[in-house]
Amino acid sequence: MACLGRRQAIGLLSSGVAAFVTTRGTLMASTPANTSSARPGADAAQAGRPRPVALASYRPAIHFTPPHGFMNDPNGLIWDGKVFHLYYQYNPHGTHAGYVHWGHATSPDLYNWHDQPVAISVSEAGQAFSGSVVLDRHNRSGLFPQLPLAHQEAADLKAAIAAISGPGAASAFAQNKASQDGEGGLVAIYTRSRPHSQTQFVAWSPNQGTTYLDWPGDPVLDIASDSYRDPKVFWHEASQKWVMALVQARARKVSFYGSADLLHWRHLSDFGPAGLRGVDYECPCLVELPVAGEGTPGESQTRWVLFVSINPGAPLGGSGTQYFVGDFDGERFTPENTLLGLLDFAKDCYAMQTYNDMPSNDVPGGAAVYLAWLSNWQYCNELPTQGWRGAMTLPREMRLRRDGEGWLRLVQQPWQLERLREAPLPFRAHRLGPMERAHTPLPANLAVEIEVTVRLEQGPGSQPGRFVIAFVNRGTATMPGEELTVGVDLQTNQLWLDRSGLRGYSQPFFTGQFSEALPAGLERVELRIILDASTLEVYAQRGMCVGTALVFPANPLNGLELRAENAQVTVHEARVWPLRPTMAANRG
Amino acid sequence: MACLGRRQAIGLLSSGVAAFVTTRGTLMASTPANTSSARPGADAAQAGRPRPVALASYRPAIHFTPPHGFMNDPNGLIWDGKVFHLYYQYNPHGTHAGYVHWGHATSPDLYNWHDQPVAISVSEAGQAFSGSVVLDRHNRSGLFPQLPLAHQEAADLKAAIAAISGPGAASAFAQNKASQDGEGGLVAIYTRSRPHSQTQFVAWSPNQGTTYLDWPGDPVLDIASDSYRDPKVFWHEASQKWVMALVQARARKVSFYGSADLLHWRHLSDFGPAGLRGVDYECPCLVELPVAGEGTPGESQTRWVLFVSINPGAPLGGSGTQYFVGDFDGERFTPENTLLGLLDFAKDCYAMQTYNDMPSNDVPGGAAVYLAWLSNWQYCNELPTQGWRGAMTLPREMRLRRDGEGWLRLVQQPWQLERLREAPLPFRAHRLGPMERAHTPLPANLAVEIEVTVRLEQGPGSQPGRFVIAFVNRGTATMPGEELTVGVDLQTNQLWLDRSGLRGYSQPFFTGQFSEALPAGLERVELRIILDASTLEVYAQRGMCVGTALVFPANPLNGLELRAENAQVTVHEARVWPLRPTMAANRG
Repeated sequence: MACLGRRQAIGLLSSGVAAFVTTRGTLMASTPANTSSARPGADAAQAGRPRPVALASYRPAIHFTPPHGFMNDPNGLIWDGKVFHLYYQYNPHGTHAGYVHWGHATSPDLYNWHDQPVAISVSEAGQAFSGSVVLDRHNRSGLFPQLPLAHQEAADLKAAIAAISGPGAASAFAQNKASQDGEGGLVAIYTRSRPHSQTQFVAWSPNQGTTYLDWPGDPVLDIASDSYRDPKVFWHEASQKWVMALVQARARKVSFYGSADLLHWRHLSDFGPAGLRGVDYECPCLVELPVAGEGTPGESQTRWVLFVSINPGAPLGGSGTQYFVGDFDGERFTPENTLLGLLDFAKDCYAMQTYNDMPSNDVPGGAAVYLAWLSNWQYCNELPTQGWRGAMTLPREMRLRRDGEGWLRLVQQPWQLERLREAPLPFRAHRLGPMERAHTPLPANLAVEIEVTVRLEQGPGSQPGRFVIAFVNRGTATMPGEELTVGVDLQTNQLWLDRSGLRGYSQPFFTGQFSEALPAGLERVELRIILDASTLEVYAQRGMCVGTALVFPANPLNGLELRAENAQVTVHEARVWPLRPTMAANRG
Repeated sequence: MACLGRRQAIGLLSSGVAAFVTTRGTLMASTPANTSSARPGADAAQAGRPRPVALASYRPAIHFTPPHGFMNDPNGLIWDGKVFHLYYQYNPHGTHAGYVHWGHATSPDLYNWHDQPVAISVSEAGQAFSGSVVLDRHNRSGLFPQLPLAHQEAADLKAAIAAISGPGAASAFAQNKASQDGEGGLVAIYTRSRPHSQTQFVAWSPNQGTTYLDWPGDPVLDIASDSYRDPKVFWHEASQKWVMALVQARARKVSFYGSADLLHWRHLSDFGPAGLRGVDYECPCLVELPVAGEGTPGESQTRWVLFVSINPGAPLGGSGTQYFVGDFDGERFTPENTLLGLLDFAKDCYAMQTYNDMPSNDVPGGAAVYLAWLSNWQYCNELPTQGWRGAMTLPREMRLRRDGEGWLRLVQQPWQLERLREAPLPFRAHRLGPMERAHTPLPANLAVEIEVTVRLEQGPGSQPGRFVIAFVNRGTATMPGEELTVGVDLQTNQLWLDRSGLRGYSQPFFTGQFSEALPAGLERVELRIILDASTLEVYAQRGMCVGTALVFPANPLNGLELRAENAQVTVHEARVWPLRPTMAANRG
């Protein structure tokens, strides 16, 4: 801020327009000089090309994707009492990572998303890296009433918002301002990143999350580090304070801080290095999860789980997330053993973050629902989509559950996905002999959900018995068919996900095959699979094994097959639902 | 042993012939009834088929493979003062896992191997699972003089050995017996596995490791578990006792025991579960490693490193090995942090075991040299070799070294591989422009070693800069060419290994691509690669990143290419050595 002379920034608004107040309180707007030069020419050059069928078919129908530009981590996930907010790391100027803004969308249900203007922009303070949003309902921060806007200042701020986000946003601001005086609102806590500095900023929203204004006292945390980022902040009820988890990335530490007002933070403790070292720790997420089936009605047993994203250097290559199960006493996270877990058995699920203030249903304090970036830094800048890159996972609810051996395991399920189910496709399969298959065509351009529960027995002969769920196409005159398979090997009790039979994209780091050991001693194999354009999510054994993968067929996968290979398959359930599109209305 | 009535087993010899003494001392031999029925018919049926070119070319020239049958973990690795012993988990009756014996080979140098008769067989006590061999030089066990063989008993034993291993082995026995009276010798400590029981056996060798006789007091450890195996035993100099590490496999624990005589074991401590849980912990290995470049001359700094193999459930799928760095005080292993490391960034390096009593060179106590099984339980029973399955890694020496960030990292290098280098191939490459390549043909049927040191700079344009080392063939009229690549991405500083361009074998778990982050801040990329038929070993940055992979081209890879892709490559060194075959003489 030194270069601003007597001016103090109170807010940095979308699309590179900064709002300042002078030391006398006058509000003015400025546009950083580097904004226009930040638009890579390569993307503009591609804009006029006709879009091949395959490229068009890569846009998911129910997974969130940005309207255009490049998206990575989810940020600021919160239910504000009326809508779900999804902010996201966003380059609106091109389809490569960089020039990081906070993109924004809102939703009533985490599936139907409405694009909003950029909420936090690149500014002279740096790029707007990852962070959180909390609802400062009681204005503990004092940020909201502290705004001493005279009539002229309010008019200037409204004009600045109108310049960025249009007259609608400005009107909303005016309305919200009127209704909000003396109350709290949404506060973002996030990282400003410059080439040799990463510091934590607090910003408040005058318009219910549409835009955020940096606090004049920013940064609130600065340890003179270029490797210090991604604050996840939540209200810790037991100790009645805000708790922040953030990383000293290269030191592979998660640092915890506490605050009463979101502005002044006290260091509580550090955790790590722990588990996998990788190169950088990123995007920590500390959350209390219920242990399914334990505790008394209304008061479930819980554990605190600390998630740490790693990039690069995750074991499957590039980006991945490990977690630890333990306790958090308001000061310190203490793992209850020296084990780590991996969030996903494939490699396209990164930088997960849970929703703050989820509406309560059966879970006290609200379900633990997260979104993650459905990609990997090893190839995110090269994916064969056109005009946009990056998707989020489906919202996923997490719990812990003891497996047959007594181990606490993370279980994940899509959150309320059932709402999107259309009438199931007619598909019958009761029993498949050693080399039999059942087939159904899949609808074009729709996400589909498959639920299959089977009992498997080795067939005659020594060949390994396998059960295969295959998404296929027949190919064309010049191109053989493709298939994407999920399957189970009976002898080793392992699950696989194989995308290597798809030919729409290849790259040295785009691993073809993933696998995981299924929990021992299970009589049935239960698979739930969602295929949505270029995304595949696999939930096995009621969410105990989850794999997430980008998939790029050269031609759309329009058939589904269940196959027995040297196995006897008794099908207890096999259902296929088309899912009602939620993203189609506002996506090309 | 209850079914034996008054007989007590003193030894179980190779190929299912058991040696017993009655309670009066009479020695007799018996053949368990199940031995002949243990030979699967499938392998016999294949024996007469002509061998395709590709199949023949899968037999390595310098990596140990069994003459026929199925091989998995290395066992009983020891330098006995004259030769290196390699025992291995072995099914001599077929090319699938099962009927586990201890196969055996000896070598003067860990490269030239001489097949020996089976050393420990399946017996009524169970299969002969993994374990160790120690040199009980001073007969601390008392096993050797305790043998009260009368003239007739010695003759019977000699006859039994002759029946199994031939007259040469029997003569050696007689000679050794004469020279060995009153001295110690080789002792095996290993697991006998039956369907519901795994117990630890001690066996002594009357003939310098050719065969082993179980001690009448066996088992020496029995905790009534079916999940308790793989003792690794070594002499712990500081506490003057034998130390055993073995696993409670399903409990994911490593248990340490101590003994003065190899027969009576005291429980010292347990370690784990720790790090990755997986399904079973197997084949623990505790070893003291020097920290390269630290300490005073003649007295290097060291750490104890505990390796734990996991199967299934390793993060890359199936089998893998994690390790912990810490201290061992003779009673307890204490990790110095909560980090774990992974031995290999690919997935074909399992059940590693270090050599006991390595000859001293520059490392006090001898170098830490290991062999591992170059395969994975996910596909080892389906590999497209003919008449044999399973290979060992090259012998690898391990150290620790601090990286640029101060972290202790495991480094590995092939042990004395330089001895096998023939005259280097004429190959010159000084500088490669953004889309240039250098090519050399590779000799047929020989292992080759590549050493490449390069400096890399991003080329013009936004496409990612990459440096590629490719093993290629041109294909045939009916089949396109294949390639196997190792490469570096400049922007992300990551290394890949990609075997997905080979078409000799595919299977849902046979992962195509592997990768690892290179240490930060390195000016040069240093790669050392050994391609030997169906095996590939990659050592990057002087052994800091090691990847091991089975590779099955449909046709032999007969060309080597260095390529710059959108990068400027300055080649400081690029050398290609054919390696003198060491296994060809006794392998088809």
